[in-house]
Formats: sequence, structure tokens, C-alpha cells
Amino acid sequence: MAEANKLSGAGLRGQSAGETALCTVGQTGAGLTYRGYDIKELAAKAQFEEVAYLLLYGALPTQTELDAYKVRLKSMRALPEALKTVLEQIPANAHPMDVMRTGCSMLGNLETEKDFSEQHDHIDRMLAVFPGLINYWYNFSHHGKRIEVETGADSIGEQFLWTLHGKKPDPLHVDVMHASLILYAEHEFNASTFSARVCASTLSDIHSCVTGAIGTLRGPLHGGANEAAMDMIQDWKTPDEAEAEIMGMLERKDKIMGFGHAIYRESDPRNAIIKEWSRKLAAQAGDAVLFPVSERVEAVMWREKKLFCNADFFHASAYNFMGIPTQLFTPIFVCSRVAGWTAHVVEQRANNRIIRPSADYTGPDSAEWVDIEKRG
Amino acid sequence: MAEANKLSGAGLRGQSAGETALCTVGQTGAGLTYRGYDIKELAAKAQFEEVAYLLLYGALPTQTELDAYKVRLKSMRALPEALKTVLEQIPANAHPMDVMRTGCSMLGNLETEKDFSEQHDHIDRMLAVFPGLINYWYNFSHHGKRIEVETGADSIGEQFLWTLHGKKPDPLHVDVMHASLILYAEHEFNASTFSARVCASTLSDIHSCVTGAIGTLRGPLHGGANEAAMDMIQDWKTPDEAEAEIMGMLERKDKIMGFGHAIYRESDPRNAIIKEWSRKLAAQAGDAVLFPVSERVEAVMWREKKLFCNADFFHASAYNFMGIPTQLFTPIFVCSRVAGWTAHVVEQRANNRIIRPSADYTGPDSAEWVDIEKRG
Repeated sequence: MAEANKLSGAGLRGQSAGETALCTVGQTGAGLTYRGYDIKELAAKAQFEEVAYLLLYGALPTQTELDAYKVRLKSMRALPEALKTVLEQIPANAHPMDVMRTGCSMLGNLETEKDFSEQHDHIDRMLAVFPGLINYWYNFSHHGKRIEVETGADSIGEQFLWTLHGKKPDPLHVDVMHASLILYAEHEFNASTFSARVCASTLSDIHSCVTGAIGTLRGPLHGGANEAAMDMIQDWKTPDEAEAEIMGMLERKDKIMGFGHAIYRESDPRNAIIKEWSRKLAAQAGDAVLFPVSERVEAVMWREKKLFCNADFFHASAYNFMGIPTQLFTPIFVCSRVAGWTAHVVEQRANNRIIRPSADYTGPDSAEWVDIEKRG
Repeated sequence: MAEANKLSGAGLRGQSAGETALCTVGQTGAGLTYRGYDIKELAAKAQFEEVAYLLLYGALPTQTELDAYKVRLKSMRALPEALKTVLEQIPANAHPMDVMRTGCSMLGNLETEKDFSEQHDHIDRMLAVFPGLINYWYNFSHHGKRIEVETGADSIGEQFLWTLHGKKPDPLHVDVMHASLILYAEHEFNASTFSARVCASTLSDIHSCVTGAIGTLRGPLHGGANEAAMDMIQDWKTPDEAEAEIMGMLERKDKIMGFGHAIYRESDPRNAIIKEWSRKLAAQAGDAVLFPVSERVEAVMWREKKLFCNADFFHASAYNFMGIPTQLFTPIFVCSRVAGWTAHVVEQRANNRIIRPSADYTGPDSAEWVDIEKRG
């Protein structure tokens, strides 16, 4: 074997591992684009289904195409009986990301991708079914209720809230879900997307790719920052209390979730967008605690550390205002990012070579066998 | 963002993506070592449990350690009732690798890794439970039988055959299983192992890492070559017929599975070992077809293309002689490679940085938003 090229930096940081036409992250230090469109414009003007269509099919849909796409997704929400049975076997104290991972994997047993000509059917099915899947388990395990997942919801975001709460959600909340799902939909070669591409590069099936990506997103260095932010801020009663607590955490060098980013250097373009939605939700809810606390934390982190909020920090309060249990925050990330993951799988398959790097060997040159009775 | 370094070669081929002390592949063009020990010595002299212990705990066990380890693994074979229920929901025509992936994921719901201090408990549990897990599903879905997985089997290889066939296996077959599981246990940064490390790098749990690796191994460019080899050779009645068929396939430029390797250039060191076991099994079975056919295919491929058998080719006949259904070949690979995958996860966790490469962007520089009513 030829000597492997040694890469600077562990974790392949700053190293190109392939090509993509889907996304740029931080090309100006701050920007995020999906297929060339600025995230700020998409989040302000599009529905999530439009953005999923853009990522998966390459262009923004016409009104006729979008209407047809939403009708199609709406028709694909039913949970197979065998999948319901599986979800009912999972205890209430399970990690909801383990439930998503298992639900996706089980779906692959029941509706296996036979060849890649079927890929878009399975992708749309996952987009349609995931909100009901997680909320079926949540309602069954926590409240003993077998919910109806074929609701009248018009969109994936509305479907999530409707299947969670069992009723048609407030229109403002549906708007927030569109924006939130758009913000989380895609982010270039992040770890979960990269794991989906590694899996795709062996020509494995689409459910394997997504199942692996869910498991990768589950890690606390990747998904879950908005849950951690919520856990942190939820008990603080005033901005002054929040400031004192944050100052103490900084002094103790505690990890504070929801700030800074591996790629962005100046700001996370997603923060201003979700922050404004959180502000509107706070006003609607008559909140005088959670939003002011969040703003104070943002100000202190900037003043003390020049650290900016990333996409996750104001997602915590926004989701909380909509009555979403904290442990379901990362599954919402899945309901969104599955669009980006699968767009990357489609792209990988179209120009594939197996992803099989080398490693620097750090073990012994050779070891001499010793028969077992002589060891010790 | 700084311009990402562009790597030569797609798929990270020949590029180091990290460090490992576990394995060298093809450092002399032909060799394979686990922690410095030559694969030929390990396969000839060790039990699979010895090799798993070596990979996971860093040194070959003493007799006392090995005995205790085998007793421990033997005590961890029971399937939770909820997992049995899940396996019973999976239809007979499912892909057995989807069953493995789902079974592993479900186990993670029932026995979640709470923190990394528990990792070896969960790893040993997976090693112990996987053979019974796949054969529970196989026997239930194909024969309507709920098998007993807590057998008297002394080893993981014996457990596989015992739970598949429902009886204590022939001692020769147990020896073959030890060698086979050792040959497949570890192979540096192959795609499935790399996906396990990407997952581990987000500090996700051990079941997510293994679930993702199973999904990656499922791809036909990675696992499954021994199944494809078996499908190819099973209908050929004589060496001459095999030669004629192979010559036709070569002329039509059909893909012939079980030959050549992405890393090895001269030979695959695992081939000679499994070939000798296949020869012994053929003699025991009084076979006058499958082994001679396999040898002729090997000779023709070398004569015509200078392509050597890799680890997979003679595994096909070996497994077939032991009465293993072809579709269960890749799940056996899982029962073995889970040792390597998890040893890599342990190693990644001990010196972690999130694996987050960049990508070369090939899409439009910018795209201008058009309101939906004006698109088309």
C-alpha cells in the first residue's frame, strides 16, 4: 500500500471529502445557501415543502407542482400496523432519537427500496411519515393513547404539531414550524450528512442511509444543542438571575450550549430568523420570562466571550412556547434534515465512488504469537 | 471559510482520516495484522473470542481471562421479550441486513448506553446476542418456530450454527466458524468502520454506531460479495461448465464478485485460509461439484485477468457446506465485524474530534428568488 497522505487537522476539518451542489456554509463567514438561494430569503418566503422540493428535485416548484407535492406527501402519512406494534414496544424512558432510528429502520423492512429508481418514493414517504411516527410513540408511551396520524394538516410542520397535541394548531405556530424546518433542512457535509453519504457510497438502501444519519445526529456534539439550551434556561426566573448563572458557568468553564459554530466565524445566519419568531411567540403567549432570559444570555455571551447564538439557542424558547416537550426537539431536526440527507444520498448515487479512507497506524509493528498456556 | 484543501481522488482513497492501533491492511501489499499479529497466525491458532478480546481489550487473554470472557458472553444471550416481538413483526421476505440493523437499533431502546463507562457491557452484549437475534427472526419468519437462543454452545460461532439449525453442530463446523469470524473481524477504515467512527465522533451511543455500520455494510460494494459469489456458482454442475460460464461473463464484461480488492494488490491473505477450510468441508461432505467448480473459477480468473480471490469467494462454498442459507452470509459478517467496529468506537472516543469534512461546491453561485406565481 502506498503511504497514505496525512491530512492536516483531525476530523477532516477543512478537508474536502467530495462535491456537492446543494449548499454553501459560511462562504462569506456568515452565509448559508441552498442551491444558491440565501437562507434568509427561503425562511422568510417559502414553505418547508418548497425547500424540500428545491433540495430534492433541483428547482423551486411552480404552484401546480407544489400543490401536487403536498397532496402526495399528505397521502403518505399512514403508519403500517407492524410499525405501530414496534413503536408500542419501546418504553417511555427511551431516547426519542433511538425511537426515530428504530422507526426508520423498521420502515425499511416493511417498505424496502428495491432499486434506486424508487428512491424518491421512499424519500417522500419518510418526509411524510416521520412526524406521525415519533408522536405516535410519544403519545402511546406517555399517555397510553393510540393517535390518528392521518390528520387534516396541510404541511409537515402542521402535521408535527397536530399529531403531538391532537388538535389543529394555531396558524402562527404553523408559520414558525415552516421557518424552523427550513433552517434545519441542510448544512453541507456535517457529520450526520457525511455518514449518510458514506453509507450511500456502498450502494446501500435509502433507509440504511437515513437510519445511520439519525444515529449520528443523536450525538451531543451534533444534534441536541437546542435541548441542552432549554434544559439550561428553563429554571431561570429573571434576566438578572440568568446573567448571574451564566457568569458563574463561564467562571467554572462549563460548556454552554447554543453558542458558536465549527464553520461560522462571525454569526450564524439562522439565529436572527428564529429569534424573531421566538419574539412573536413570546408576545402571543404573554411571556415575560423565557424570551427576556434568552436575550440576556445572548447579550452576556457576546459581551464576555464574543460568542454568537447559533441556530439552536432561540429554537429552545420557540419550541417551548409551542408546547413541544424538550426531548422532542431533536426529532424535529430529523423531520427537517431528512430532506438534506436524502438530497445528498441522491447526489452521491449519481456520481459514486465508495468512501474508504486510510488511517495512520499507531500500533506495534509486529507482535509475536504466544500460546495461551504461556501467557500472563 | 478558508478554501478547503482539495483531496486527490474521490472517496478519500489513500487519504488518512485518522489514527488507529488496531489493524494494518496490505502494508506489504499482502498482509493483514490485528494489533500487530499476523492474520494467518490468529486464524490458525486462536478462537474468535480470543481475537475479539485482543481487539477490544488490547492484548491476548490468558486462559483464565478467556474462560471468564466466554462465560460472560454465554450469560448474555437472552433476547428481551420486546425485541422478540419486534423481530416477529418483520416479514420473511425482508433483507436480513435490515433485520440486523433494526434488531440492533431496538436493543438500544431497551438497553440504552447511559454513558461511556458502560461501553464494554453493551459491546459484549451485542457480540453475544447477534447470532441468536438473526436466527430467531429467520426461524420464526421462515419456519414459524420460536427458537430457544440460550443454548449450550461454547462459542459465538457454535451459537450461530446451533441457533440456525436447532442442534449442536459438527465440531469441524465450529472450527470453521472460528476461523471465518476471525478473518472478518477487522479491516481498518473500511466504509462501515468509518461510518461507525463518524457516528462515534459526535459522541453518540454505541448502538447508533453499530446500527449505522450494519446499514453501511449492507451495500453491495461492501458486504454481500460472498452471497453474490454463491448465487453465481450454485447452478454450475462441473468445472468445465463453470469455465465456459466465466469466460462468457468476462466477454460480456459482467461483474464477477469475490475477486480483487481495493487495497490488496497481490493477494488477499484471508483467501488461502478459508479455501483450506472449504476443502476440508468438501471432503467431509463428499462434495464433487462445488469445491472443484470454485477452484476452476479461481484458476480461470487468475489466468485471464490476474485477479485473485478475496476473502469472500471461498467463504461462499464453506458456508454452503455448513447448510447456511445464502441470505444469512452477510449477517455472519456482522456477528464478526461488530468486534472491529466497536474496537474502533472505543478508540475514537478515547481521542475524539468530530469528523466534519468540507465539500467542493459545484452549484450556482447565487440564485434569485422568484415568487411562486411567477415561476414556470
